[in-house]
Amino acid sequence: MKIDGVAHRSIWLSENGWSFHIFDQRKLPWKLEIVEITNADQAAAAIKDMWTRGAPLLAMTAAYGLCLALREDASDASLEKNYKKLLETRPTAINLRWALDKMKAAVQPFQGKDRIEAAYKRAAELCDEDVAINSAIGEHGLLLIKALAKKNKSVNILTHCNAGWLATVDYGTATSPIYRAHDEGIAVHVWVDETRPRNQGALTAYELAQHGVPHTVITDNAGGLLMQQGKVELVFVGADRVTRNGDVANKIGTYLKALAAHDNNVPFYVALPYTTFDASLESGMDIPIEERNYDEVRFIEGKDGKTQITDSPVSNPAFDITPARLVTGYITEKGVFSNLSAAYSDAA
Amino acid sequence: MKIDGVAHRSIWLSENGWSFHIFDQRKLPWKLEIVEITNADQAAAAIKDMWTRGAPLLAMTAAYGLCLALREDASDASLEKNYKKLLETRPTAINLRWALDKMKAAVQPFQGKDRIEAAYKRAAELCDEDVAINSAIGEHGLLLIKALAKKNKSVNILTHCNAGWLATVDYGTATSPIYRAHDEGIAVHVWVDETRPRNQGALTAYELAQHGVPHTVITDNAGGLLMQQGKVELVFVGADRVTRNGDVANKIGTYLKALAAHDNNVPFYVALPYTTFDASLESGMDIPIEERNYDEVRFIEGKDGKTQITDSPVSNPAFDITPARLVTGYITEKGVFSNLSAAYSDAA
Repeated sequence: MKIDGVAHRSIWLSENGWSFHIFDQRKLPWKLEIVEITNADQAAAAIKDMWTRGAPLLAMTAAYGLCLALREDASDASLEKNYKKLLETRPTAINLRWALDKMKAAVQPFQGKDRIEAAYKRAAELCDEDVAINSAIGEHGLLLIKALAKKNKSVNILTHCNAGWLATVDYGTATSPIYRAHDEGIAVHVWVDETRPRNQGALTAYELAQHGVPHTVITDNAGGLLMQQGKVELVFVGADRVTRNGDVANKIGTYLKALAAHDNNVPFYVALPYTTFDASLESGMDIPIEERNYDEVRFIEGKDGKTQITDSPVSNPAFDITPARLVTGYITEKGVFSNLSAAYSDAA
Repeated sequence: MKIDGVAHRSIWLSENGWSFHIFDQRKLPWKLEIVEITNADQAAAAIKDMWTRGAPLLAMTAAYGLCLALREDASDASLEKNYKKLLETRPTAINLRWALDKMKAAVQPFQGKDRIEAAYKRAAELCDEDVAINSAIGEHGLLLIKALAKKNKSVNILTHCNAGWLATVDYGTATSPIYRAHDEGIAVHVWVDETRPRNQGALTAYELAQHGVPHTVITDNAGGLLMQQGKVELVFVGADRVTRNGDVANKIGTYLKALAAHDNNVPFYVALPYTTFDASLESGMDIPIEERNYDEVRFIEGKDGKTQITDSPVSNPAFDITPARLVTGYITEKGVFSNLSAAYSDAA
């Protein structure tokens, strides 16, 4: 996607051929700062402290993090130690485990310099694959927008959190059909949930603004009313994990929007790459819910710094579960499906 | 209710017998500042700029505001002018109109000094009536909590916005049964929605803390998950307006919690005084939705000042409509009803 007119991925190898770059997303939307990652500890910190975020992008950061670790020490012991270290940064992120497993499988047959070379090669492939998948999600999801497009009227799409190109290597998942529609001249307007506690909606708004897509930021409380008023034609969200029965773990608050969409006959779509599908779990009830740092609720960070909004006890669950019965369909790289088992019968 | 151990109403007449006091609630929960209101313009500003808030308390502020206006000029022209001025501060607040109409009816038969005296007498009666109504709401609502109380386990109640004593003359509406249960030794724990954009949840948390009621502040996104996890036994909310068919206009986001409660078989109760019941409207679809200042969404104000969270276009609807079908019951001063027309057959 473009930033100030220049095409960018969200993660890329340096010209030196071994370190890599990401954005320090903690400073967005106010400042886009590029950071160079030169060792595995830094990569782990970038994931843990949310310099980088979004399930696919975390996975790629871990993949290149493992490359950096092997570059320093290509031994089996180093591989194991750093695999574990990178995995533990976000224990519930399935894509992270997936990418690290792919990396491990690719490098295990080799030793020394060959192992390092195999690692970098595989990490680059994983990044290219992410871009291809998201592009395909955009292509399939575009059909849903096209079906609702009318002359002289925008298609209004509500989204929660950031499932955009800042969360992936490029295009995003939930946003990919939106960017594609916009690029093809179909009028779209996006309602962006601010997504407390971390306000990732501001990142989505930043992305959309950079790409010239009309959008409006709303509080997480407002989407239900907008659907009641007929101001939302589609809901597109991403996913952190989708289980065999089609239940969706996604950013806290997604479930509330799915309920409102269902109550107002607004189609609710989940965009996901196959790496987000977890065939090992039967239903969403099997997914452990991560409790995040309490200061995320107690404080809000913005352009003018941090401000405290309560000194009471708080709770901060990271995800909720949207039951499959509330999901109209799943937008995947293979097409749009009303039932995920049809899409991933081979994976189950 | 008590602040630092001292009993307080949220609005009270000064010792001079003519000016009145309220809290400047904009500084809460960090600082409780008492302000003296000495003229009608100040009263109108206090309502408009949200020094004072909550449907019943706004109404009482307007009632005493009219007293101050008449004290300066008790003519019919002054009565009309100031009635209109105070009404226009919040055109959608039904209690405000109700209180001003009561005041007008009480003072119209009189002139001069007698009119002023009648105004102060009626305003004091309205305040006492608000306290009596909220106390009765607490008494009836207590039964719902008692029915769920078990040994060695708190009853978990979720609430949205602030329908507490800071929004009324005393006790609050949705909070009144909670305070009563706590005072009677029934273990209760309150999940407090932060309630963006204005974070009135911080006020509810402040109130509960002052009174010693255990509570936890959560983002507006979290309540659905807590219900999925069986961590909520009851939802109690207030109302800005309830129509003849039982639809509820309340703070934006209430509808989403009602949907989640319904989806998880959690009883959802609306606490209201009869002044909130609007027999002139058939359904919630007839209620105009106020759009509030955009800066409420763009900025967040906390202990350490204001911080900007987006510079994108925003939307800021103040209320949503919870359809009657999602409401388990209405807690009123007359009792708990599953159907409001039974409670207010005389008013319809």
